[in-house]
Amino acid sequence: MSTVVDALIGKVFTETRENRGGQLADYIPELAAVAPDSFGICVATVDGYVYEVGDTRLPFTIQSISKPFTYALALADRGSAAVAEKIDVEPSGEPFNEISLDPRTERPRNPMINAGAITATSLVAGPDLDTRFERIRSTYSRYAGRDLTFNRAVYESESRSGHRNRAIGHMLRSFDIITGDPDEAVDLYFRQCSLDVTCRDLSLMAATMANNGVNPVTGETVLEPALVERVLSVMSTCGMYDAAGKWVYEVGLPAKSGVGGGVLAVLPGQIGIAIYSPRLDSHGNSVRGVESCRALSNELELHFLHVTRAARSAVRARYSVSDAPSRMRRSPAERAALDDVGKRSRIYELHGDLLFAGAESAVREIGGVEENLEAVVIDVRRVDDVSGVARRMFETLRADLGQSGCALAFVDPAGLLGNTRSDLSGRAGRVFADLDAAVQWCEDILLDRHCSTARQPSSVTIAEHPMLSTLSAKQLERFTRDLVTQSYARGDLVIHRGDRAAGLFLILSGSVSSTVTDQSGAVHRIMTLSAGMSFGEMTMMIDSRFLNDVRADTEVTVAVLTTERYTEMASEEPKLKLALLERLASGAYEQLDVMLRALLRQGGGL
Amino acid sequence: MSTVVDALIGKVFTETRENRGGQLADYIPELAAVAPDSFGICVATVDGYVYEVGDTRLPFTIQSISKPFTYALALADRGSAAVAEKIDVEPSGEPFNEISLDPRTERPRNPMINAGAITATSLVAGPDLDTRFERIRSTYSRYAGRDLTFNRAVYESESRSGHRNRAIGHMLRSFDIITGDPDEAVDLYFRQCSLDVTCRDLSLMAATMANNGVNPVTGETVLEPALVERVLSVMSTCGMYDAAGKWVYEVGLPAKSGVGGGVLAVLPGQIGIAIYSPRLDSHGNSVRGVESCRALSNELELHFLHVTRAARSAVRARYSVSDAPSRMRRSPAERAALDDVGKRSRIYELHGDLLFAGAESAVREIGGVEENLEAVVIDVRRVDDVSGVARRMFETLRADLGQSGCALAFVDPAGLLGNTRSDLSGRAGRVFADLDAAVQWCEDILLDRHCSTARQPSSVTIAEHPMLSTLSAKQLERFTRDLVTQSYARGDLVIHRGDRAAGLFLILSGSVSSTVTDQSGAVHRIMTLSAGMSFGEMTMMIDSRFLNDVRADTEVTVAVLTTERYTEMASEEPKLKLALLERLASGAYEQLDVMLRALLRQGGGL
Repeated sequence: MSTVVDALIGKVFTETRENRGGQLADYIPELAAVAPDSFGICVATVDGYVYEVGDTRLPFTIQSISKPFTYALALADRGSAAVAEKIDVEPSGEPFNEISLDPRTERPRNPMINAGAITATSLVAGPDLDTRFERIRSTYSRYAGRDLTFNRAVYESESRSGHRNRAIGHMLRSFDIITGDPDEAVDLYFRQCSLDVTCRDLSLMAATMANNGVNPVTGETVLEPALVERVLSVMSTCGMYDAAGKWVYEVGLPAKSGVGGGVLAVLPGQIGIAIYSPRLDSHGNSVRGVESCRALSNELELHFLHVTRAARSAVRARYSVSDAPSRMRRSPAERAALDDVGKRSRIYELHGDLLFAGAESAVREIGGVEENLEAVVIDVRRVDDVSGVARRMFETLRADLGQSGCALAFVDPAGLLGNTRSDLSGRAGRVFADLDAAVQWCEDILLDRHCSTARQPSSVTIAEHPMLSTLSAKQLERFTRDLVTQSYARGDLVIHRGDRAAGLFLILSGSVSSTVTDQSGAVHRIMTLSAGMSFGEMTMMIDSRFLNDVRADTEVTVAVLTTERYTEMASEEPKLKLALLERLASGAYEQLDVMLRALLRQGGGL
Repeated sequence: MSTVVDALIGKVFTETRENRGGQLADYIPELAAVAPDSFGICVATVDGYVYEVGDTRLPFTIQSISKPFTYALALADRGSAAVAEKIDVEPSGEPFNEISLDPRTERPRNPMINAGAITATSLVAGPDLDTRFERIRSTYSRYAGRDLTFNRAVYESESRSGHRNRAIGHMLRSFDIITGDPDEAVDLYFRQCSLDVTCRDLSLMAATMANNGVNPVTGETVLEPALVERVLSVMSTCGMYDAAGKWVYEVGLPAKSGVGGGVLAVLPGQIGIAIYSPRLDSHGNSVRGVESCRALSNELELHFLHVTRAARSAVRARYSVSDAPSRMRRSPAERAALDDVGKRSRIYELHGDLLFAGAESAVREIGGVEENLEAVVIDVRRVDDVSGVARRMFETLRADLGQSGCALAFVDPAGLLGNTRSDLSGRAGRVFADLDAAVQWCEDILLDRHCSTARQPSSVTIAEHPMLSTLSAKQLERFTRDLVTQSYARGDLVIHRGDRAAGLFLILSGSVSSTVTDQSGAVHRIMTLSAGMSFGEMTMMIDSRFLNDVRADTEVTVAVLTTERYTEMASEEPKLKLALLERLASGAYEQLDVMLRALLRQGGGL
């Protein structure tokens, strides 16, 4: 079935196919021997899907499209500084095969004209010609994701007729731009130009550039990101021969064409485009290649300076522990203290990209709070992309806040900000995997400072357990007799989600969390309960299944009334049942309240 | 207090200040009369915040930085095609004041050299010189967000010594590039160059470009987005005179400099930068301006081809109504039908940017589903940015799905996809403000097709109400006597959040929703209840406050047992109370289950 995108690309293909202008390259017979009306368009995504229309599997020689890839290899082999001493990066305003250097710098003007490209080829490392060619061939192959082959016929023909390039080679040698044998450099250049590619190959080579140097199909890193940026910069200003300005103005994609009829274009971070159509215009660019690129750029809005909206604030929500407490159930005294000083905490949920502009909006807001903050949480789980400068900005913010006595924790399970959980610990700063644990950490800091008494007890006896406070002495005695005491080690699963009612669990010491596991296998805490609290009452009383797991967070002791005992007791003593049901209703009410707050905190999700 | 970003910019400022190289422009005495070591840096964000360090409030003449702004005005006045007939967009490789045209096209090579700039000035519309100048001045002022003033001394001096520019004017006239009086065009050009700006002004002018033509402080639209893209393209390739290639390679920001000592640079969508330091290099660019731009680009990672990660899938979650049902409580027969055919629905939650690549990944996935889909929901509430091509792609997807009998609804309260709720309605497609309503719409489509019997009844009598099914005939009679029947119109608030227990409400006909309102004022549905269901039991039995509002969705009739009546009855008839408590527990359990699913659907938020 034709998809939405196939239809869009197909439209450009159909319209551009009408254009039969231009001439085949004919300086060697092999290039003039192709079917002149061949035409293919490929668009490859950064997850490796390739849209294809037309003659996308026909092989043709890569020719000048090799130039950015060999330039990239030279940069990787020799370093940017060494290459910059040999090749400039200025658009030339001259034909690609000019036998001249910049009169001021005495260097080739850029690596996309032949003089610069031959120089780049001469910089590829290797002990001998064959090894160096094999390095070039295998590198291109890694961009394409398949083994590219050598077209000997084209090579031999180019080699026979390539006097102009030999002249360039000797000129380069005479200016000491090439230091070795210039004929060898030119021979290697002819070989690289004679590698066969298809339109599909070129689109994946472009997509590898778009994907920051990682082949989207094989996952292999072919070029480091800083060099991708460099190569794309040169393609932007010099890739389309002497029409670079118009290209940026009208198309706005770093691109490279070759006299074989190919054009390759890159939208960084998004897609790779390739077109094959061998008729060329007077600049040596594929006529349909240029026209298709222009149409695709307009139709698909691909111009690299195209901005549909400005960066927005990275802060999507801000609140305190008073607005959205953690799921740790607190004692009344603790709750009162948090109501009192909760505003000294602040939780920020960030989203979008944390490049400079996004990070700037966040640190400006967080650093500009007037109140005396004591604990701040920054949740970056919804953040897409973090640049190095953003990481440094958040580190500085953490240091600044620390100096004014405010602790800062990140919720950053993926380590986007560059800290792992073991890097940061203690009161100065922490990294958490989930927001709720970070909010609890905030609360604990405030409670340690502002709530010295009446904290939640660490253990209770059965008689002290608040669940039994409404019972008469006689009921309590009866009840206690039926209870079984059980202990669990930290991490033990006390109850599985889906278990049938297993009884009423009174926590005597330690804490448990009720949790659920989502489709992705991630575990989420619903609520943490500690000594003096209870669980299991609802499932028991309505004889249903547990909605969540219950797991011991610490060593835990519970007193359990089994369902059998409960049923017996309830029929003998209806008032006991009634008392329990009323406590159950209170518990359910509280739990609903907690979940409602959790849902509200998530805003739009409801 | 110095902020994180102040510190970053301050570091660049301190390091660059050491550079005392370069010479003041001295072709007129006014330009040589400034303090040579003046230095200021401003970075303006797209929300209008300006970071400033150094001499950012000193006025100086705008000079060549005027060129892109007048070029933009010419494009707006005459259209791109007419301007393209007069001015090319190719980097020149020649000094800015060259008295020459492109030998092939016989046009100025680009609008950033003097010949092109004078031509652009000649294209500004207006009946006379003064009006045209006032249009230029007031346009620049709208970019800067304040009224810019004219520096008559500099103008008169430039005018006296501007023979080279007059020569250019006459050359342009002789080639019919300028059709009016060339001296007048040159005079207007001198005037525009003599407008005084500060570093802060320039940063806001740049930020207006970065903000897609909208001044971030005043909110005024100064230039349409398509033209912003054009102007930035020319600045990219031609903005920094004959060092354009190196500029893109090393700095990667569309920029423009002036001999007054200013440099302006734009990171589209993100920030505007301006530097003032009057010592110039041999190209006529501010020495510290170039060095600061390079340092800021490296330090803040601002290169426009910088990609830290590739685009990711726009689909953040996909599930069916079986996985996450709506909050409409359904009858058992309806639930069974939905369990059976629920997989024929699909809900997609999208996020990030829907430019071409993001939209492509979404339509590829949605269009490629193998199953027979009958209803699809696409939730774009978390989407940041939508391009025109993405809108067209989703429209095509909707048409394609419609042809195969599948309805498509968007959750798109902001109208990002270009449809409003009134544009789309009925079964072919809908636009909803919230996800839950869209999910319910999916369920209704499936139920209409696959559940012909035993749908939720539209009304029940008191005796039929399931809440009372466990009661004996005698209890029922007693109960019925105490009930009061009440009616509500659609939209009426039956219960306010925070109300004290008001009794037990049995729904006899119509439906109500329990809702909560978040801090932003948005209303979220917790659950919708219809005939045969009840509410209010929990708050009544534990004598607490309502956690949510209850609002009539339709005309509603309820039978109410007041709290007073209930208390009386419960003390007389404890078994009735027990039966109600048990139903309450079931209701609470079901409600917790619904909320748990809602929380899980939101994934990470828990």
